[in-house]
Amino acid sequence: MSLGRLSVGVSAGLGGWLAGWLCSTKSEAPPRLRPLPGHPMFGTVSAAMPVPADAPMRDVGTIDPAPAKNASRVSQIMRFGFPGLDNVRSQSDYVLSYDRRARVPHWVFEHLTAESVQRNDEVDRAGCAFNADESIHPYFRAENSDYKGSGYDRGHMAAAANHRVCQQHQQETFLLSNMAPQVGIGFNRDKWNDLEMHVRKLCKVFTNVYVCTGPLYLPRREADGRQRVSYEVIGRNQVAVPTHFYKVVVAESPAGHLEMEAYVMPNQAIPNETPIANFLVPPDVIERAAGLLFFDRMDRSRLKRVNGRKTTWL
Amino acid sequence: MSLGRLSVGVSAGLGGWLAGWLCSTKSEAPPRLRPLPGHPMFGTVSAAMPVPADAPMRDVGTIDPAPAKNASRVSQIMRFGFPGLDNVRSQSDYVLSYDRRARVPHWVFEHLTAESVQRNDEVDRAGCAFNADESIHPYFRAENSDYKGSGYDRGHMAAAANHRVCQQHQQETFLLSNMAPQVGIGFNRDKWNDLEMHVRKLCKVFTNVYVCTGPLYLPRREADGRQRVSYEVIGRNQVAVPTHFYKVVVAESPAGHLEMEAYVMPNQAIPNETPIANFLVPPDVIERAAGLLFFDRMDRSRLKRVNGRKTTWL
Repeated sequence: MSLGRLSVGVSAGLGGWLAGWLCSTKSEAPPRLRPLPGHPMFGTVSAAMPVPADAPMRDVGTIDPAPAKNASRVSQIMRFGFPGLDNVRSQSDYVLSYDRRARVPHWVFEHLTAESVQRNDEVDRAGCAFNADESIHPYFRAENSDYKGSGYDRGHMAAAANHRVCQQHQQETFLLSNMAPQVGIGFNRDKWNDLEMHVRKLCKVFTNVYVCTGPLYLPRREADGRQRVSYEVIGRNQVAVPTHFYKVVVAESPAGHLEMEAYVMPNQAIPNETPIANFLVPPDVIERAAGLLFFDRMDRSRLKRVNGRKTTWL
Repeated sequence: MSLGRLSVGVSAGLGGWLAGWLCSTKSEAPPRLRPLPGHPMFGTVSAAMPVPADAPMRDVGTIDPAPAKNASRVSQIMRFGFPGLDNVRSQSDYVLSYDRRARVPHWVFEHLTAESVQRNDEVDRAGCAFNADESIHPYFRAENSDYKGSGYDRGHMAAAANHRVCQQHQQETFLLSNMAPQVGIGFNRDKWNDLEMHVRKLCKVFTNVYVCTGPLYLPRREADGRQRVSYEVIGRNQVAVPTHFYKVVVAESPAGHLEMEAYVMPNQAIPNETPIANFLVPPDVIERAAGLLFFDRMDRSRLKRVNGRKTTWL
């Protein structure tokens, strides 16, 4: 476990939360709980729903009456398991789980390749409009008016530049169900964008890149020793402003080896000179905080590196 | 809509949240959005999963490999629809959805009758122990140690006294997956208990009583006009301490009419003299805040009263 990197990450803005969590883990966790991604505590039991190639991906929770037009693409994107199953939506080129209470995603899943992220002059970002997602019940739907005047960007979870095969793919990333409020300068437009670019660059070396992105609401330890979660909500629909965002990435090499990276960044202006490696964290830290299990259908014997370290500790 | 009652409720501790929400609703909501419970915005589309009598109720999200022993009881309890479908667990006499991020339920559903709540000297509450729910993945499981020393009670969502048919039913209400941290004196042991007793008393008049209970995390408007959600988390597993709790009740009369009551109480000491009617709120206020839809399979033409007012506004 890359504690060396983690301590750097803490100094770069994660506050005492991770440090406190890990300390208490080290001292109190039962020994059988090893900090592994998608920890298969119970053998074959999985957080993943099997996705047969012909299965329509539908949200039985709310509104999505049409069978997915892209069932086989969904099974490609979700190849290594669903992090959770709450209000799942499948778009043409990404899959998300919507948090109806927070009006932002729980998680958004993408599958990138060199082909899918290559520059395409046919696709025009400026031609895309931010639209409310009419498949979400109006009680739980974020609207453009919620963001207006809030001071926050409508921050993509599935990045627009990851979906350049055609205009429709790009346009679908502009649905507000794919957004969360992000600090603009220093974060969405800068360090978070650096992280998105880093993920796309992995496609130059790896055959397949799977990336799961989402929000976190992390507690802080206060002066009296108690821990408190505190976050703003914006607009009439009270859209949650996450305290942090995560990305968990699995990249498959041409030889079939897998490497994982897991990042947590605070939703705040981050100095440009901070390397993104400062934000690497053990994947299970994100799983516990988000209430999700990532890549739990993955064959862990193929996982050769986590956060750049060889998985000799497996 | 009982705005008269609501304004009393606000003065009794709901703060500016409801008032602010309702004001903005009145001025900004599109006219087609009427504040109705389980508002069927899209005709036949429902938040409910059909529950055939022989269907095992399983949580595909985590761990519950055995088919429910009580599928027909589940379909009785959930007769009027599932509020949501995230991590559903069926016990012998109640059904819950678990919030893996908060380590407390999203909602707990019960079906009460005069028979099920009657006094039974065979059932011994003192013989029940609070147990962690081993069906929840250890990353997301609340433990007794989380509550210890926190100053909060382990507050039942499905009340123990609602499940007196046999010792096992009572014992199952003591699973920590059915708990949330509650202020003890003045709330869990007092005003919240009054509300639970009120619901049981409905069984003297009504044939069937359906009750959905759960936590809320409500924002407050701060001095700068911004709204912020803020709540404590306790213990190593960071169990969320909800700011409020809700109960939504539907009672069916011998003539087949339905009446609904919806309550929100702040998780704080409440003066004993405060009538519980002060905490009645329009049901959709809870739905929006919780991210859930209650009783959405219910035939609304049978709904004769909401919060004691005739539904002439339907």
